[in-house]
Amino acid sequence: MLSQKVVTNVSKGSMIRAMFEEGAKLKKIHGADKVYDFSIGNPDVEPPKEVIEAFKKYIQEPDIHKYMSNAGFDDVRARIAGKIQEETGISIGHNNIVMTCGAAGGLNVVFKTILNPDEEVIVFAPFFVEYLTYIDNFGGKPVVVQSDTNNFEPKAEELKKFITPKTKAIIINSPNNPTGVIYKEETLKEIAKVLEEKEQEYNTTIFVLSDEPYNKLVYDVVKLPSVLKIFKNAIIINSYSKSLALPGERIGYIAANPAIQDIEMLMNGLIYCNRVLGFVNAPSLIQKVVASSVDAVVDPDIYKQRRDLLYNHLTKLGFSCVKPEGAFYLFPKSPIPDDVEFKNIALKYNILLVPGSGFGGPGYFRLAYCVSLKTIENSLPAWEALAKEMKLI
Amino acid sequence: MLSQKVVTNVSKGSMIRAMFEEGAKLKKIHGADKVYDFSIGNPDVEPPKEVIEAFKKYIQEPDIHKYMSNAGFDDVRARIAGKIQEETGISIGHNNIVMTCGAAGGLNVVFKTILNPDEEVIVFAPFFVEYLTYIDNFGGKPVVVQSDTNNFEPKAEELKKFITPKTKAIIINSPNNPTGVIYKEETLKEIAKVLEEKEQEYNTTIFVLSDEPYNKLVYDVVKLPSVLKIFKNAIIINSYSKSLALPGERIGYIAANPAIQDIEMLMNGLIYCNRVLGFVNAPSLIQKVVASSVDAVVDPDIYKQRRDLLYNHLTKLGFSCVKPEGAFYLFPKSPIPDDVEFKNIALKYNILLVPGSGFGGPGYFRLAYCVSLKTIENSLPAWEALAKEMKLI
Repeated sequence: MLSQKVVTNVSKGSMIRAMFEEGAKLKKIHGADKVYDFSIGNPDVEPPKEVIEAFKKYIQEPDIHKYMSNAGFDDVRARIAGKIQEETGISIGHNNIVMTCGAAGGLNVVFKTILNPDEEVIVFAPFFVEYLTYIDNFGGKPVVVQSDTNNFEPKAEELKKFITPKTKAIIINSPNNPTGVIYKEETLKEIAKVLEEKEQEYNTTIFVLSDEPYNKLVYDVVKLPSVLKIFKNAIIINSYSKSLALPGERIGYIAANPAIQDIEMLMNGLIYCNRVLGFVNAPSLIQKVVASSVDAVVDPDIYKQRRDLLYNHLTKLGFSCVKPEGAFYLFPKSPIPDDVEFKNIALKYNILLVPGSGFGGPGYFRLAYCVSLKTIENSLPAWEALAKEMKLI
Repeated sequence: MLSQKVVTNVSKGSMIRAMFEEGAKLKKIHGADKVYDFSIGNPDVEPPKEVIEAFKKYIQEPDIHKYMSNAGFDDVRARIAGKIQEETGISIGHNNIVMTCGAAGGLNVVFKTILNPDEEVIVFAPFFVEYLTYIDNFGGKPVVVQSDTNNFEPKAEELKKFITPKTKAIIINSPNNPTGVIYKEETLKEIAKVLEEKEQEYNTTIFVLSDEPYNKLVYDVVKLPSVLKIFKNAIIINSYSKSLALPGERIGYIAANPAIQDIEMLMNGLIYCNRVLGFVNAPSLIQKVVASSVDAVVDPDIYKQRRDLLYNHLTKLGFSCVKPEGAFYLFPKSPIPDDVEFKNIALKYNILLVPGSGFGGPGYFRLAYCVSLKTIENSLPAWEALAKEMKLI
């Protein structure tokens, strides 16, 4: 009666969403303060005050709720282009920006615009698992390349082996979900070199899709390297879900490097796909709100404090974990090889986590620490008990 | 470098959007009050006061901008289900509602959920042209069935000829874009009879997708017939773009008839597709706003007045037109068979209209009268001059 593919995928379900539901159930039984839910990346903080002020300013303005260009309001696009220019020094105008329904919407629009059937998109494992579905939505083939498990950075030499004449794009996600790792400039430059070689060899264009919703949540580095400076064929996909704590509002953008060959056709394609996939345009009021708030950001120190507490406690207890420098995730090694089994053991202590298998990283688990410091504090004895059961201490 | 299909479609362009751009150009040259732009369905009215009050109420509430279930907020879904129940008498709960990014988003979600490759979707001509693209997005085949040009209603006997074992759905769009016609209950019941016969013959399920964003903009009838009462396999796709004048905000819903077999699997499929197509969830704040405003509607008399003025003037001048009872469109016959040529002639008088070819209705043209009464009044002499050139008077 329905799409066979959809029925199959629905029955497989989402590990993250399954834990989300499990969490709601446990909270009903034990009370919310007795359940330590690290399963989902739903920021618990409220948006910065600039956002609320902008809402108040714009809700009464005329024409604010009407259709505009499928690319978004011109002034909003110009404001965001200006901010990118300020941060990177790259000259970019409103013509290279398309406002989107979050990064998830933006990625779907990009894939529809660039992919022909059976073309390949390289994804570094572990990865945000929805990438695979987004690529499949448009007939593309995800090609998974393992990261270096010592630091969860991509390895340029490993990447090289997987590039074929059908490679249409690679995805860069830094700060990374699920590892929290930030890719070093040097790593990105090595990747750029490999891509240029292969593009010459095959006479192809390989887009670098930089999915960077966590780019404002960085803790120990001064500045993120700019993909626009490193990759000629960079397309940034961004969202304000995390930086302004607005995940429900579905607002983000695509920014394409003006240096891309046929940039005009690319932009027209993106705008067309934004329309025909049914987004039509990014929600209108919130476009104006984020443009008014380009300089605002939720306080990263809130997350840094949580990371430090949780990371220090876990490593002290004997868990092995690459120290994340951004986003709000930890990706420790599971004490037993079967990460799904470990998830079940942790559940006994009311700790909700997502098995690494859900991110193409079996043998690990993901903790989303976008929960209150109090919840983390309350969870510490449970972690200790769990570490004991796992014979870590 | 890009998707070949997208490149081809972009170069074909959208007739409606092309007129939209043409209009902007002409307005710069002649001044906005000298250009009569009937090209696009962008409501010129502001949302009802209930909407603005709801915005003010909700922007400061905690948790309002966060992720919720991919189906939308439960209380919002319950409120909308309640309103449907109130209006139709059909018992329907929040479980049968999915909040979407407008009707365009909703239709894409539905097609992804139900279509297998090469399955067919029946569309009555003339039609909202994006249907064809939405169906194609998911590998479906649009099958066009002509309406009765005497009244622009579908003909059940004609429909019957086009139903095959591959027919997965038909689209009903009443009040109709581009004709403004409302389908009579009797017509719908004849269609239901044909569908039941064919479903039995082929042992298939044929969904009736009722795209009804104009259902609150009705002028001469007391009440629209309810598709949920007439079609067992009805799926309503609706939006608040027109009824609350919020087209930029991208908010609508899918409501599926609880009587559908495997309704639970259908709902899970819709929720899954809402997620993986990158909508994730309908924008959050505006969900709460429309739920607070279910009883509100823009004043249909505003549009009725415009319809009467324009319809009466045009028919007096000799244009032939089925009198529309809803939406904000007129679909008169072009005085010459070549509707694109007629569009060009009208442009000389600064009248912007869209050729019927853009809606699978060659030989006609569409006027969107969601422009001020003043603009319509100002346009009357231009219409008269045009009628003279066309030798209608």
